[in-house]
Amino acid sequence: MSSSLRYDRSYDEFAVPAKKKHSGKKVSHGAAERAQLRAIGVIRSTLKSRSEAPKQGAEGAPDAWLEVKAFAADGLDGITVGQELIVLTWFHRGRRDVLKVHPRSDPQRRLTGVFATRSPDRPNPIGLHRVTVRSREKNRLRIGPIEAIDGTPVIDIKPALTCAPDF
Amino acid sequence: MSSSLRYDRSYDEFAVPAKKKHSGKKVSHGAAERAQLRAIGVIRSTLKSRSEAPKQGAEGAPDAWLEVKAFAADGLDGITVGQELIVLTWFHRGRRDVLKVHPRSDPQRRLTGVFATRSPDRPNPIGLHRVTVRSREKNRLRIGPIEAIDGTPVIDIKPALTCAPDF
Repeated sequence: MSSSLRYDRSYDEFAVPAKKKHSGKKVSHGAAERAQLRAIGVIRSTLKSRSEAPKQGAEGAPDAWLEVKAFAADGLDGITVGQELIVLTWFHRGRRDVLKVHPRSDPQRRLTGVFATRSPDRPNPIGLHRVTVRSREKNRLRIGPIEAIDGTPVIDIKPALTCAPDF
Repeated sequence: MSSSLRYDRSYDEFAVPAKKKHSGKKVSHGAAERAQLRAIGVIRSTLKSRSEAPKQGAEGAPDAWLEVKAFAADGLDGITVGQELIVLTWFHRGRRDVLKVHPRSDPQRRLTGVFATRSPDRPNPIGLHRVTVRSREKNRLRIGPIEAIDGTPVIDIKPALTCAPDF
């Protein structure tokens, strides 16, 4: 990573409107909050380190458990076994100061902007994983294949919109 | 939205390891930071409100400009006109305290967990948009179709991995 470009860390934060005074009307909570992520769950996997993780789920990744936190469990209602989901993770080991990488860590490939790659090193290290639901036990979904390592925070789950093999 | 379930706001934040002391070795910045998002850009669209936005890009959404902030512009290197991208946005008007919704805002459909829907109201209101790059002008990409409204923060851009029509 020594050859990667980095950016000035004096980046902008979100411009978020100030919290409105209570006016008797409904307040849009989302708009008034800072853009701070909350983990809604965590990956429990046999993959323990980045070095042993495949670069994409389809490249030999195992199944894993997605443990959803109690506060968010109601959000799982309607998810069915066999369904395809997009799981969004936070690559907590990713580097946020990297803007260019050699694709697939191959020094023979020219430095490329991170937005043109799937590198886990990027300003907001969010991972997208298309997975199939294998089974469900209360707050836990058995999903796969998924290359995220053990302990990776999960920040969102969405239904895949088509039966495409990947996205 | 009055019939939506809400969760206790005393949710967990990310468990993030304490910042390591400088030890002469490289420090993984990503692991030591809080899970705070930084906007890397913003959507400039003719859509000005949620009420006029289609629910999915493929449902008649317009093209829009994605303006990338100066600090992150190097990350665009390698993106080409005609390429398909996944744009990740932050639904800044989304409600983060909603766990169940009527799919597609149709009261006839039963309340469903937000993780089984594409509702913009969810604990981490992240939007996924599959778009085509129409043109590029320095830090600005013309992309579409995209249903995100004007001013929506962009938090990541990734290449789509296949030519699937959607994900």
